[in-house]
Amino acid sequence: MEAETQEKASVMQRVKGWLDKIGNTISSVGKEAKRLAKEDPRRVVHAFKVGLAISATSLLYYFDFFFAGFGVNAMWAVMTVVVVFEFSVGATLGKGVNRAIATLLGGALGMAAHDLADLTPEKVEVVLIGLSICVIAGVATFCRFFPKIRARYDYGFLVFILTFSLISVSGYRADVVFDMAHRRLTTILIGGCVAVLICIFVRPVWAGKDLHRYTAANIEKLGCYLESFGSAYFKESHDKNLAPLRDFKTVLISKGTEDSLVNFARWEPRHGKFRYRHPWDQYLKIGSATRECAYKIDALNCYLNSDAQTPLELRTKIQAFCTTISSKCSLALIDVAIGLRTMTCPLSSEKHIMDAKAAAKTLKALLKTELWHDTEFLDIIPVVTVASLLIEIVTCTVKIADSVEVLATKVKFKKPKPEMNRQASREKVKRIPSIEASHSVNIVFE
Amino acid sequence: MEAETQEKASVMQRVKGWLDKIGNTISSVGKEAKRLAKEDPRRVVHAFKVGLAISATSLLYYFDFFFAGFGVNAMWAVMTVVVVFEFSVGATLGKGVNRAIATLLGGALGMAAHDLADLTPEKVEVVLIGLSICVIAGVATFCRFFPKIRARYDYGFLVFILTFSLISVSGYRADVVFDMAHRRLTTILIGGCVAVLICIFVRPVWAGKDLHRYTAANIEKLGCYLESFGSAYFKESHDKNLAPLRDFKTVLISKGTEDSLVNFARWEPRHGKFRYRHPWDQYLKIGSATRECAYKIDALNCYLNSDAQTPLELRTKIQAFCTTISSKCSLALIDVAIGLRTMTCPLSSEKHIMDAKAAAKTLKALLKTELWHDTEFLDIIPVVTVASLLIEIVTCTVKIADSVEVLATKVKFKKPKPEMNRQASREKVKRIPSIEASHSVNIVFE
Repeated sequence: MEAETQEKASVMQRVKGWLDKIGNTISSVGKEAKRLAKEDPRRVVHAFKVGLAISATSLLYYFDFFFAGFGVNAMWAVMTVVVVFEFSVGATLGKGVNRAIATLLGGALGMAAHDLADLTPEKVEVVLIGLSICVIAGVATFCRFFPKIRARYDYGFLVFILTFSLISVSGYRADVVFDMAHRRLTTILIGGCVAVLICIFVRPVWAGKDLHRYTAANIEKLGCYLESFGSAYFKESHDKNLAPLRDFKTVLISKGTEDSLVNFARWEPRHGKFRYRHPWDQYLKIGSATRECAYKIDALNCYLNSDAQTPLELRTKIQAFCTTISSKCSLALIDVAIGLRTMTCPLSSEKHIMDAKAAAKTLKALLKTELWHDTEFLDIIPVVTVASLLIEIVTCTVKIADSVEVLATKVKFKKPKPEMNRQASREKVKRIPSIEASHSVNIVFE
Repeated sequence: MEAETQEKASVMQRVKGWLDKIGNTISSVGKEAKRLAKEDPRRVVHAFKVGLAISATSLLYYFDFFFAGFGVNAMWAVMTVVVVFEFSVGATLGKGVNRAIATLLGGALGMAAHDLADLTPEKVEVVLIGLSICVIAGVATFCRFFPKIRARYDYGFLVFILTFSLISVSGYRADVVFDMAHRRLTTILIGGCVAVLICIFVRPVWAGKDLHRYTAANIEKLGCYLESFGSAYFKESHDKNLAPLRDFKTVLISKGTEDSLVNFARWEPRHGKFRYRHPWDQYLKIGSATRECAYKIDALNCYLNSDAQTPLELRTKIQAFCTTISSKCSLALIDVAIGLRTMTCPLSSEKHIMDAKAAAKTLKALLKTELWHDTEFLDIIPVVTVASLLIEIVTCTVKIADSVEVLATKVKFKKPKPEMNRQASREKVKRIPSIEASHSVNIVFE
């Protein structure tokens, strides 16, 4: 009796444990979902847009008027919407255009292959169709390795292979190949149009705009690092707050996101402040200059936590100049970032850069003198390296400013209005949703 | 008359110009294709495999035995092959498994939705189905933003939405929803199996193996850089050959490729020397240590081309130690790379690292002395920075060696056989095909 009660109790306990676990999992998934939605509310809108687009297309199936025309082929429309609908307008348009053109070409070629094979006896026909599929699919697959094709038309080649195979294979069976190809093309066009229209007209997400903000935010991150570097480096190690000094790390691995966004942006029509032939390639150059600067900052960052430190009293001898350089570079970068973000000519970055250059020159001259006369050489190395890295960062800052300047000239940035509150713009740059995570960029988040 | 002849001549010339242009384009495309095929012959094999797989599946359409069972649904098999077949086994398996499970779940849920809606009057049914599609597609789309899902199950969720929509939408029309769902699942399974089997058994490309080689090659690239750095830096600038010193740049942006390959490799069964639960995550750690070292080398690289140089006669004072450090680190890295590549314990890296550490220690001590007593401080800064970067690179080398060591312990690397020709292995590492470009990793090649 007692054993039974005990057993019952233990079973109850185990069940309770399971229930707790399930409850925990559900609540943690819920929390994560809430976080994702808060981080970038456009995700929720996107999910809703996809649902809406699919429901709308499914009406093709429902209304007799359409169904009489398309029959089961109407499913291609639903399928197209599901596959083509991406987070940004550029990605959706790129996929849609690729799919439409590839379907057209694949269908035409498939019909040609079918008609050719039709002229021969049946046994030969089968071999011919099989062979043509093998050869054309093989060649098209190989073409997907061409770097230029892979960058922009990869999906198109996939759909081409698909359509060609489907149409020419149907030749084994149906003699209504033309009808099938025609219906497939029409339904895909309808599906693609629904996807593209909903994507553009319901709260659109422009990859170009995001690329623009992403580039500005990356420059800003470097600026923020340099803003706090000066004060952090010339302090005793125990009262350092290093948390804001870690943001810049994501800039180091920004290349993939940037490439994808540029790729998407190229497909987009003019929108907002971005005209039709906006020089998207220039963003790659700005990004590469930004990353170069980030590598230097990464080197600099090592000296914050390094064990081999120059004693603080020796460091203070060049504190003024180092702090000036880092704060002036920081001001310049932030000004450039705000200018880029708001598409206005940077107001004061030139002045800050001049100041930074002057400070760098003085620092160089100072290092020439017998500054640390009677100290051990080794003690000075870290601080000298920091100083020379800072001097290099001035050069990098100039490079970033120049590459943004090139963009400003090409796009004709406006003069900022005097009443514009730049601090408010800065806050805006900071509160940028996490762009890497929203666009479909293949990154393993560790 | 003359005018006519002239016009004719000019037309002829223009036509000739066009023909030349077309000829040039064709020949350059041909050259590019040849280069791509030579760079990685597996690309040609892959293209052939895809053609073969599609042709094989198209037989489902041809033979009456199959066609009687599947009807037009047989096209799903062809479609699955086209969509699922990827360059590596891991990517193919990942997509195949995702597609199969998602079709099963999506089909089941779609049928449930259809059956539920069937209980209500027709008008309500339509609304119910439309609503359920909108809600479920929306929720599934939102789920695709979860980082963990995006990394491994993104494609599965897409197919889930697709299948669910197709099946429940068919409910408007056909009352044979179950048959349709069943056929779709079967044909997709057949297509997936054909793709996976051909991918695995005809000259397989293992993402895991490529990841392994890629990681080793990246370490090797750093080693090669350090091998030639010493001699390049202590030479007058005009006789420098900097070409082999640029290879390492690709290591800086290796994160995306690595992430994708790890992702693919996780799907692969045991193959070659890689067992079922091979610690793929450790490669991410090795890669991150390698990149850290590459950032330092990038900083070092600036001093090769910099204008601000320490005069050569001053540089030579520490030449011996710098050269020792860079060559010993180089030897250690190359040894580690060969060890990783051949999955044998590195033979001599420990000794080389000890030597490098010793040289670094002596260099540090040397810098403490009044080495450049009566020279300008500023002249010395570059060489001192180079020296301290080299000292840091020793630490990075140790980190890389340690992370490979962890892998070696987990996987139980063998002792190398004495007769193994390590130089030959090295040549093998060098002739590695360009892995970034072969696997479907989204990179814009500039």
